[in-house]
Formats: sequence, structure tokens, C-alpha cells
Amino acid sequence: MNRLRPFVRTMSTSALPPSTIPLLTTVAEFRLWREAARRDNKSVGFVPTMGALHDGHMCLVRKSLAENDLTVMSIFVNPAQFAPHEDLATYPRTLPRDLEILTAESLSVSGDSTIRTASAVFLPSVREMYPSGIDQNVAAQKGTFLEVKGYGEQMEGKSRPTFFRGVATVVTKLFNAIEPNNAYFGQKDIQQCLILKRLCRDLLLSHPDPAHVHIVPTARDPTDNLALSSRNAYLSAEGRKIAPTLYKALKVAEQAWNDGQPKELCIAQATDIVRNVATLAKESDLEVRLDYIEFNESDSLEVLDRTRCLEVDSRPVILSGALWIGSTRLIDNIVLGDMAKLQ
Amino acid sequence: MNRLRPFVRTMSTSALPPSTIPLLTTVAEFRLWREAARRDNKSVGFVPTMGALHDGHMCLVRKSLAENDLTVMSIFVNPAQFAPHEDLATYPRTLPRDLEILTAESLSVSGDSTIRTASAVFLPSVREMYPSGIDQNVAAQKGTFLEVKGYGEQMEGKSRPTFFRGVATVVTKLFNAIEPNNAYFGQKDIQQCLILKRLCRDLLLSHPDPAHVHIVPTARDPTDNLALSSRNAYLSAEGRKIAPTLYKALKVAEQAWNDGQPKELCIAQATDIVRNVATLAKESDLEVRLDYIEFNESDSLEVLDRTRCLEVDSRPVILSGALWIGSTRLIDNIVLGDMAKLQ
Repeated sequence: MNRLRPFVRTMSTSALPPSTIPLLTTVAEFRLWREAARRDNKSVGFVPTMGALHDGHMCLVRKSLAENDLTVMSIFVNPAQFAPHEDLATYPRTLPRDLEILTAESLSVSGDSTIRTASAVFLPSVREMYPSGIDQNVAAQKGTFLEVKGYGEQMEGKSRPTFFRGVATVVTKLFNAIEPNNAYFGQKDIQQCLILKRLCRDLLLSHPDPAHVHIVPTARDPTDNLALSSRNAYLSAEGRKIAPTLYKALKVAEQAWNDGQPKELCIAQATDIVRNVATLAKESDLEVRLDYIEFNESDSLEVLDRTRCLEVDSRPVILSGALWIGSTRLIDNIVLGDMAKLQ
Repeated sequence: MNRLRPFVRTMSTSALPPSTIPLLTTVAEFRLWREAARRDNKSVGFVPTMGALHDGHMCLVRKSLAENDLTVMSIFVNPAQFAPHEDLATYPRTLPRDLEILTAESLSVSGDSTIRTASAVFLPSVREMYPSGIDQNVAAQKGTFLEVKGYGEQMEGKSRPTFFRGVATVVTKLFNAIEPNNAYFGQKDIQQCLILKRLCRDLLLSHPDPAHVHIVPTARDPTDNLALSSRNAYLSAEGRKIAPTLYKALKVAEQAWNDGQPKELCIAQATDIVRNVATLAKESDLEVRLDYIEFNESDSLEVLDRTRCLEVDSRPVILSGALWIGSTRLIDNIVLGDMAKLQ
């Protein structure tokens, strides 16, 4: 517990930056806001974030603004989804700038004179989110935790074994606090999206129901297609130049797949792309290392064990990967098949 | 999965017994009912059960009828809370009789001409409750499960290590399906009550909020104070005579405690009571064996490690035990201190 003290944001009202959007720091405060929205029969869209906002988050906000009367964003850096050796301490925290970016986002509703902006920001403390406390060491944890067994051990879970447990736990809490009609997540975290849909289905949740957990296509840098991510901020100028390699490798694998090549060859071609870049990077002392590139079924999330399975009526296949650039770990993915069939 | 097939109650409407109380078998059906109740601004009390109703359940129903506009009972034998070697297959299933008992229960509301009875019974199938399937073998399970770490390993959890995981998981699902304002549980399962209060607090649940998880005093046989339990049905005539021994032993420990004796002596005196009965029972070939008698703090559920800790402003202490009579395991408990201080 004590080790987390430095990261518990002090959320007394006086410490909050000025904001025209209401900032709510406790569940009790938020419930009053939510109750009023319900009385007024307003739909609520929800965009959960860990802050350090970029245009990827704004894509989620824009979709929520378009599809709901009211939009709530949460900003909470969740200790439970960081392993003790990971970057909880250094994760970018940029609240004043986040609020500026969010405030600037607005949407004119056609056939309506009103302009929609985000209606509330939920900024809970660690204590508010974890009433029984939280320790990053899973073995020392006390209180209520969730796991989505069979879906969080592969892909990202293989490299980060307690990650989805932390995600499932905090998102369940956030869903219960916010009680949204719709929730928006970025495709970049595709396994997270699919696990959360399953969680809502398994838990018989109505806020949101699984069909209202929306997967929004990954936002990319328009110049080189790098997937937008708060962790891109960690990259050196050199690393930033190399970062688009992961998506390039995935696109090569996708092309090979569409050309009818077996999975192993698709992965081999993608791996070659990374290897060539890594060799060059090593000359300037930057370590580039592929964590994985893999094909997984989108329903079971199991590694695709057939050479070819994408058929017209089948569920999509997830082609995903993770790449280390120095000490920064980046992820990306491509959905092969019809996104609308993701469950 | 296949091993559970025989226990999946077929819930097609034609298979249901006749009932004047609406029987709802799917979450979708129930949501319509719930939505209507919300529109009418009616409060909903919830009594989750595994059926095999007795007057203990009816005490919960009576309290719910008194405190809510509408009362919902669920009847669902939850596979996830039985270990593979436990009594899932033989657990008493008495639906037609359960519905008769529930229908007969009514309450005249003072200052109101209406007579309240239960308003709906939720009778989900295993598939409805576990959309990702359920295997009693924890290692083989897939899908979303909850654990309340640090509170489910002692007392009952020591003898039944996966029990509270199953309870936490199914009750979370039921709370999400029913969305009750109030929920009612019997004190006999005191650890379950306290874990569920913590679960609601940890998960920031509003339906119900932790203060609306109500602990109703254990209902007892008026002749010999045996705690009412569906598992009492397993007892032979001989076993039934011996069954009140557990409560007698707990009462002796309570008396010793109130006399100011240290915990160890209180437990020793209670154990003696059981030992004497066990010796007699052995003569008629009935094995009676004490599983445990223990004192636990009510907030942490940790074993009481002081000789004396009950002070005026402190939380209550739980004195609880489990007794085997042949192959039937009975539990009981006494709360030392102010029940209203249980959190």
C-alpha cells in the first residue's frame, strides 16, 4: 500500500485545474449527476481513459458525443493493471492539458441548435476506486478482483499476466459508478475490447450491455500510420522514426494472408521487416525487439491453429503484435474480416 | 461441461409448475419486468435462494415484503459454489413446493389496503447465468469470475476453498440481472453476508449499495434452536437429534466469552460439548466430527489473535463453527457485539 502513496493524486477540489466541464471526484457526487441525467431521460456515453489524451481518445469522445445526449470521460491511472516492474510511476499525467483538449472538443447536432461537449469528467482517487486498498503485488492484494479466464492469458496477457485482471476489475468498478448506456474503447487495445464485451455478457450487465461496448477503429498518425498511444510520448526522436515498423510488419502479414499464404509464412514475412529495422537501429545503439506477432480467433482469442480459417461466415481473425523500442512497448493490430462480427 | 448437463433444469415455459406469481426464466424477460417497476417508481427487494425453501428463507421474504414495494426471489442452484466432490447432484430441488410456500406468504401493509406477496420469481437456467459455460473444476473454467481476496480463505473458505469465489460470481450476476434496491441474506451464512457487503463496496455497486445488503437473524427450530437449513433435509432421525449440538457448543463458548474467559478456553469448552456427543453417537455408528469453532474479527474476518478484544466501540466478533454429522455438514454462528455495526 505505502508504495502507492506518491501516485495517489490529491483530489481535493482546490487542487483541481479550472474547468468549464464539471469535475467529479467521488462516486457519491457522480451518482447525483447520474440520477439527474436519468430523470431527464438523457442517454450517457462513457469514455474511460488514463489521461495523457491524444486524438485517439478524441475519436472515442467524438463518437460518444454523436451517439449520446451526454458524454462522461473518466481519467484514472489504474494501479492494478501495472505489474510492479512496469511504468505506473512514469505513466504520463497531464491533467490540465487533458481538460483543455477535452473542452475544445465539440459537436453540432444536426437538426438541433445545441452544440455538444463532454458533460462531466470523473476523476476518482485511488482510495475511491479501491475501498479495500490496492497493492500492485497480486499476492498481497485484498478485496474484490475479477478475472476473465481463458481470454486474458494469450496475446497481451502472455507478456503481461496480471494486466487484464487489473483492467477487468477497474472497468467493472467504472461501469458501476458511471452506469453508461454506451461505452467506447479503441481498437488498438483489441483484446481489452473483446474481454470487456465478454465480461459484460458474463456478468449480465445492463450498463452497458455487451452490444453497447463499442470498438472504435485505431487512430493513426496521418503521416506514417503509427497508432496513437499515450506511451508514444516515451519515444526518443530516433525511436519515434522506427515506431511505425510494427504496423508496417502487420500490413505485410495481412497482405500475405490475403494472398492466401499460410499463417506461419505471414508471420515470418512480418518478422523479417522488424529484424531488418532492428539491425539498423542497433548501429545507433537503440534496441528494437519484437515481442510477438500472432493470429488469434476473435471469439475464443485462441491462437489460430489452422493454416487458413477465414471464411465468409466465420468470425474475424485478430492479427496483432507488440514491439519493444528501447524500454517502450508498443502494440497494434489489424482485424481480418468483418469488424461488425466481433462479439 | 457435459458433467453438468443432468443438473441443467429445463426451463421451457411448459415445464414450469403453475404459479400465480410470475415466473421469469431469462434475463431479457426479467429486464422488462424491472423496467416497468422502475417506471412506476417501485422499490425492489431481492431474496436470492437455491430453493428447497424453509422458514429461514421466509424470514427474508417477510422482511423484504415489509421494506419494499415489490419483492423478487431467485431460485438457482449455483454449480460454481460446489466443489466437484460436493453435493450439487443431490442438493434438494423442490420447485413446486417452493412456489406453494412462497405464494402462501403475504403481508398486510398498515395504512394501506393492499396485501403484499412476492411479485416475481427469477428461475434462470445454468446457461443463462453462465453464458461462457461453467465447469465445477476451477482450473477448467472459462469466462468471468470474482474473488474477494483476504476474506474468503478463512472460516468456511478454509474447508471450502472455491466456495466464496462461486458465491461472489453468481451473486454479482444476480445483482446485475435483478438490480435490487435491497437484498436479504440470512445470518447463518455470516461470512457470505460480510463478503457480499464488501463486494458491493469494492465494486462501487448501486444495486444494492453495501448498506442495503441486509443480514437477517438466523431462523431456528423453536423446539431445539437448530438453525434452519436446506441441508437439514439430509439428516437421519438420529442425526437430526444430534444436529443442535453445534449451536449448544457455540452458546457455551459465548457464555464463557461473556464471563471474560480467553478465546482458547471458550473454544475448548465448546469442543468438549461436541466431543461428548460424538462419543455417544459413535455407539450407534454415526460419525460426528467438529470441523472448526473459531472467533474472527468481523471487519477483516481474520482469526481473533487477542485473548480479548470486544470493546464498546469496536466492531463485533464472529463466533462460528461447522459440524459434520455423517456426510452432512452444518454451520452456525453467533455475533458477539452489535449486529448493526457489521459492515
